[in-house]
Amino acid sequence: MSEPRTIAEDGDGVVILDQTRLPGEVVHVRLTNLDQAAQAIRVMRVRGAPLIGATAAYGLALALREGVALDEAIATLAATRPTAVNLRWALNRLHEVLSPLPIAERAGAAWTEAGNIAREDEAANAAIGRYGRPLLERVDRRPVQVMTHCNAGWLATVAHGTAIAPIYAAHRSGLPVHVWVSETRPRNQGLLTAWELQQAGIAHTLIADNAAGLLMMRGQVDLVIVGADRIAANGDTANKVGTYLKSLAARAHGVPFYVAAPVSTIDFACADGAAIPIEDRAGAELGAGAVPVANPAFDVTPAALIAGIVTEQGVFPATGLGAIRR
Amino acid sequence: MSEPRTIAEDGDGVVILDQTRLPGEVVHVRLTNLDQAAQAIRVMRVRGAPLIGATAAYGLALALREGVALDEAIATLAATRPTAVNLRWALNRLHEVLSPLPIAERAGAAWTEAGNIAREDEAANAAIGRYGRPLLERVDRRPVQVMTHCNAGWLATVAHGTAIAPIYAAHRSGLPVHVWVSETRPRNQGLLTAWELQQAGIAHTLIADNAAGLLMMRGQVDLVIVGADRIAANGDTANKVGTYLKSLAARAHGVPFYVAAPVSTIDFACADGAAIPIEDRAGAELGAGAVPVANPAFDVTPAALIAGIVTEQGVFPATGLGAIRR
Repeated sequence: MSEPRTIAEDGDGVVILDQTRLPGEVVHVRLTNLDQAAQAIRVMRVRGAPLIGATAAYGLALALREGVALDEAIATLAATRPTAVNLRWALNRLHEVLSPLPIAERAGAAWTEAGNIAREDEAANAAIGRYGRPLLERVDRRPVQVMTHCNAGWLATVAHGTAIAPIYAAHRSGLPVHVWVSETRPRNQGLLTAWELQQAGIAHTLIADNAAGLLMMRGQVDLVIVGADRIAANGDTANKVGTYLKSLAARAHGVPFYVAAPVSTIDFACADGAAIPIEDRAGAELGAGAVPVANPAFDVTPAALIAGIVTEQGVFPATGLGAIRR
Repeated sequence: MSEPRTIAEDGDGVVILDQTRLPGEVVHVRLTNLDQAAQAIRVMRVRGAPLIGATAAYGLALALREGVALDEAIATLAATRPTAVNLRWALNRLHEVLSPLPIAERAGAAWTEAGNIAREDEAANAAIGRYGRPLLERVDRRPVQVMTHCNAGWLATVAHGTAIAPIYAAHRSGLPVHVWVSETRPRNQGLLTAWELQQAGIAHTLIADNAAGLLMMRGQVDLVIVGADRIAANGDTANKVGTYLKSLAARAHGVPFYVAAPVSTIDFACADGAAIPIEDRAGAELGAGAVPVANPAFDVTPAALIAGIVTEQGVFPATGLGAIRR
């Protein structure tokens, strides 16, 4: 069985799984131009830092094929979402490759490079699975009780996932695992994680985000593992809002708290978490009608609360990212 | 203007505001028998520890009028919800008053005592407002930034509220206050709080529960004040699930975290938080379809994280409840 993928080349376009329709409906959408790609990122048909990066890369290739100027296409895509650094990372990488080329060659080169980014993401996440698996194996309890937040499974990446990759790897090797899946208000990405785990036959239980502290107090969690949208050079990690509360509860109860992300999610130009821009999304996402709403989409977990960052190069202390090859 | 009330005598029944219909619709329901009263508590037409206690008292009076035996009526009402101690407190109080009386006199005496409980709750909460108001006044910032969780306003009591009573008192005295209202998944009681505050003209902003940590990290919260469903003798406090996560974030950022509750919410027979029963409610409350769900409705905040407990007798250290007159 081939690994499920979120994005695939299809003739002169790319096909994505529309995540705003999941888990109720499995609907694929074909993107053939810049507007469609930018819109898909903005309204979260695609989401998750690595997948946002790959989609932006393909979106840039589609834009150049339409005749949109390189800088204009990059500006449009960069403006879709502010926090996930993979978006800018992918666009910067394409800009470096494309800007020296004659305009006539750029669209083709962009397509090739977008494919490279997608394949590298798949490989990086497979490696994250291999490096992260021992974190679960060293737990004594069976099934191992893992808590996650948001969706950092294959849906958040090109394939394999980040935080869920070690869980998939452990499950494939026969380790009994149970996952506490937090709902992840306001967008309920926990339902995406529950859907992924159900498809993979991995035991899981959905909880309200509010229940995370009680479960840790009761000793029902062996480790927490989450993805990341941007990791600062000092290890401070921006991830889906609510992650920080889980890290505080984990610390209070001696539960190790891990972050899993490809190196492309580390922003070495960003000194610490205070420098990470936090996206404010529409209050309507809470579905509360005319009530005044604040809806920050991410929060920052200080490096001091992170037991380790699982990357495709291995597991690093959050305060030791300088050892990573860029 | 008279204070809004959640429950009022109406001939041979009581009229309640059906909180399952709020904030969309203001619907009053008349309770005239035991089944209706028990059902109203169970499905949360009435909710909030003090109001549950008052409703149970009236429910017992209605049951006796129907000819239901005292012990049977108490057992039925006591089984509706396990965590809020005010339920058992009210039933125990009526049992003490009624059991020495001839059966023919019990229904009338129960009705009188239920009225006493309701009036005492109203008075206790007004006193909580007076004792709690200085906690807001001593903050330097204007408007004072208060965070709460769930609904501990007048809707959770007979009148005035517990956690919100000091906010109402401060607002009436002209202090500018802004309230961060957390959504309170899975039942979204934050919408009840937003509705209350809107009616009172108090500035407020709804947030996902997940956003509480970020707001405290950013210094946007001056104090947290929540209600309680049961306070153990050592000060450990059971309140709506998610309260504990807020207390951890408050501690991490030096934000004082207060609990407001009448003395009837303190269970002196309960040594500590581990002895408080935590209600598990139906997974369907998360609205996630066929996904496996765990739905604990409360969690426990350790006394060590609580800056003070605001009661009708004054503000007490959480670890100093022994000084309270019972």
